[in-house]
Amino acid sequence: MFEVAELGQKLDRETFDARAPALRERLLDAQYRLKQANFPVIILIGGVEGAGKGETVNLLLEWLDSRGITTHALGKPDKEEKERPEYYRFWRRLPPKGSIGIFFGSWYTRPIVARALGDSDEAQFDRDLARIVEFERMLASEGTLLLKFWMHVTKKQQRQRFKKLESDPDTAWRVTSRDWKFHARYDEFVQISSHALRRTSTGVAPWEIIEAHDSRFRHMTVAEKICGALEQRLDAAPPPPPPEPIACPSPEPINLINQLDLTARIPPDEYEVLLKRHQGRVGTLSRQLHSHRRSVVIVFEGPDAAGKGGCIRRITQCVDARFYRVIPIAAPTDEERAQPYLWRFWRHLPGRGKYTLFDRSWYGRVLVERVEGFCAPDDWRRAFVEINAFEEQLVESGTLLLKFWLAISPEEQLLRFREREATGYKRYKLTDEDLRNHEKWPYYETAACEMFARTSTEMAPWTLVEAENKLHARIKVLKTLSGRLEAALQV
Amino acid sequence: MFEVAELGQKLDRETFDARAPALRERLLDAQYRLKQANFPVIILIGGVEGAGKGETVNLLLEWLDSRGITTHALGKPDKEEKERPEYYRFWRRLPPKGSIGIFFGSWYTRPIVARALGDSDEAQFDRDLARIVEFERMLASEGTLLLKFWMHVTKKQQRQRFKKLESDPDTAWRVTSRDWKFHARYDEFVQISSHALRRTSTGVAPWEIIEAHDSRFRHMTVAEKICGALEQRLDAAPPPPPPEPIACPSPEPINLINQLDLTARIPPDEYEVLLKRHQGRVGTLSRQLHSHRRSVVIVFEGPDAAGKGGCIRRITQCVDARFYRVIPIAAPTDEERAQPYLWRFWRHLPGRGKYTLFDRSWYGRVLVERVEGFCAPDDWRRAFVEINAFEEQLVESGTLLLKFWLAISPEEQLLRFREREATGYKRYKLTDEDLRNHEKWPYYETAACEMFARTSTEMAPWTLVEAENKLHARIKVLKTLSGRLEAALQV
Repeated sequence: MFEVAELGQKLDRETFDARAPALRERLLDAQYRLKQANFPVIILIGGVEGAGKGETVNLLLEWLDSRGITTHALGKPDKEEKERPEYYRFWRRLPPKGSIGIFFGSWYTRPIVARALGDSDEAQFDRDLARIVEFERMLASEGTLLLKFWMHVTKKQQRQRFKKLESDPDTAWRVTSRDWKFHARYDEFVQISSHALRRTSTGVAPWEIIEAHDSRFRHMTVAEKICGALEQRLDAAPPPPPPEPIACPSPEPINLINQLDLTARIPPDEYEVLLKRHQGRVGTLSRQLHSHRRSVVIVFEGPDAAGKGGCIRRITQCVDARFYRVIPIAAPTDEERAQPYLWRFWRHLPGRGKYTLFDRSWYGRVLVERVEGFCAPDDWRRAFVEINAFEEQLVESGTLLLKFWLAISPEEQLLRFREREATGYKRYKLTDEDLRNHEKWPYYETAACEMFARTSTEMAPWTLVEAENKLHARIKVLKTLSGRLEAALQV
Repeated sequence: MFEVAELGQKLDRETFDARAPALRERLLDAQYRLKQANFPVIILIGGVEGAGKGETVNLLLEWLDSRGITTHALGKPDKEEKERPEYYRFWRRLPPKGSIGIFFGSWYTRPIVARALGDSDEAQFDRDLARIVEFERMLASEGTLLLKFWMHVTKKQQRQRFKKLESDPDTAWRVTSRDWKFHARYDEFVQISSHALRRTSTGVAPWEIIEAHDSRFRHMTVAEKICGALEQRLDAAPPPPPPEPIACPSPEPINLINQLDLTARIPPDEYEVLLKRHQGRVGTLSRQLHSHRRSVVIVFEGPDAAGKGGCIRRITQCVDARFYRVIPIAAPTDEERAQPYLWRFWRHLPGRGKYTLFDRSWYGRVLVERVEGFCAPDDWRRAFVEINAFEEQLVESGTLLLKFWLAISPEEQLLRFREREATGYKRYKLTDEDLRNHEKWPYYETAACEMFARTSTEMAPWTLVEAENKLHARIKVLKTLSGRLEAALQV
């Protein structure tokens, strides 16, 4: 694979100097247009040590307008990152639309280094690479222009480079014992990298292998490729406007929701006893979970007025206020809108020993956004895959994930709307929107049933809760939670 | 001071139960109105250990809608926080407008604990308290409703409480050896707290001392006080619309800007030599500074087209791309608008060994916002104090702070506008706004001169740069920078 980068390609100073000014102008123009454009750019700089990655990035930043570009040289994860799924550190550094992010260390570093040092086996390595492909496909679907450069030098060139750097007191600090350690394992490293590059060179995010020994050739090649890709994307016809939302088909006559027994109820006196028992249980278990430093994410979905707030309160009543956070999901802020869809959920993930309760969640994509046509059909269709991948990472990192759907009948919803209005407090006004949503009930039911089918996984199953009787719903939620907490503590 | 909280006040269960429902309704109503309101609420919960702070917060969260409330129990600062000024961790946790932030550990914790353990002396303690007063005054000016509760129990009550918690296996974990250590120093702790409370009970943010022994009395008192304060603020007449911007007076006939010798220039051939020399110097020093883990913040201000971008580029050319970031300051995002003015600068402060270059900065408050009337006169007037306090914290935490004003004549600005237009690239169009700003030149000059007078401090002086000749400006900036870097390394 790397033969293409061992051809001895060079660029003499005259040619370089002659071509540079026009290219710089083109780059600046493209960057200027990018600022008004509706997509971000990610540039990954990978490759062997001593290939001059830093030099080339420095030149790029000199040629471009460094405003609007952020360079990330990722070292070890910090505490906040260590307490969350691995990709948290990448999500929090994604460049917003209109800007450029350059990554030295990236999502490739840990898998490749771990494999080279024997800390992961082949199967684990391939799983890591599959996750990368998934992540990059998501980025591309969200509009990110992703450019990946792999700087290649031969083993001999690497040694020469290290020796040269070491001979100059001004640059000797740049060669570390770690570099020499990797040099000794050059062949292995190259073989592993080659495997990684092959697996992750997808149509939407191919790797560009750069012959890196000659710095002028390296600089010019990378700069030209970036410029070309940027221009191409900027010149591309704008994507067609999203087609009209497709009305959901009518719900199946027999489905998960309409098969629920909504008559299930608990009488108030029994409720008081059960509430006390289950809350006590959740309280005790949650303290244990806290001392085991496990995190919990709980998702609540369901129609308006299904009683999500009431269930959430019954949980938080028995968890210490220092350990939980309730995140209501409403319209995204403009910083959130400038990022891929899941970004605004990643930012709220709990650290170890903490709870996050989502009142509505990432499932909005395949519920309200689907039904109301707020996103294109392609967007909500791919969301199922993206959500499963997201939840997989959550669970893998040790987070306990619970997802509750509170089910009520449309008649009960109307009744509760009226009741709320009648309480006379200023907190509630029945709006036209509430009523419009109410009329779309069958569409929401269809969307919810497809959601269960596609996202109720063995690691993150949905719990459907009969919520026509609020007391029954609360007890079922608490009981399910304490069961899951208990199981998690026994592992 | 604490005698008011040793009166033996209690609330019996019947009275509590009778009063609770109405209070809960009022709290929820107030919180609902807060969501539409244009201010945030901060609730500080301080006091001796064993006073039941956690219990009361848990109850508050049960009574309120926990959506829109974030509880912060601050432990040790993490790496990101340790690398920045102490208040970084508080700034990043400030609740946005319309929401509530509850702080257990707060900006009081470190100063009081340090004093109690003898890690700081009285003078340092008073400086810490003065900073708190300054910070809280800023919060209040920015519209924050700040409620501070101090839970008090006697030494005897504290011991009883610890013993009781320890006797129950379910709660024994809550009493730590640290608690007993503080118990032994109860009198000292109370005396130090009393001093702190006295110093920081200001008109805008008084402390409420709560007799905490009886939990019902404690709960009810805190909840009622919060409810009352919220309602009072919500019912208050909206602040009057900001008065018309006051036109700046004409600039003084002799002032810092018009006394600059704008004829200062460097011929191109000399420039090349000097550029190479000074960039080499800055490059070497910046690497040293990086290995000393010192941070650098550089601010560029000056009229449009004064050459800020060019100066920034000459610096970044000699600093490794991994170590710097350029932050262009434009209109705030909506998340930034929901926070105090300086919030959007705090979030960009560099970690140790890093550079942040601001292309325009927090000084916008006293320049463009003042001249264009984007903020009320009171706002930009208090900004001088707030900015000095901000920069003091930066410098104290070991950051090297440089501030450059690039000065050109109005004629030169027009000339550069025309030149930019003539280059024919798409990057620049002269707008009406550019010309309008140009016409306000004298106002900007007055504002800038007042800014120098009030913010050129011994720890963070302004450097005025004659920028009519771009080459002269760049060399002066590099020379100043290398001088400051050198001095910093010698300390």
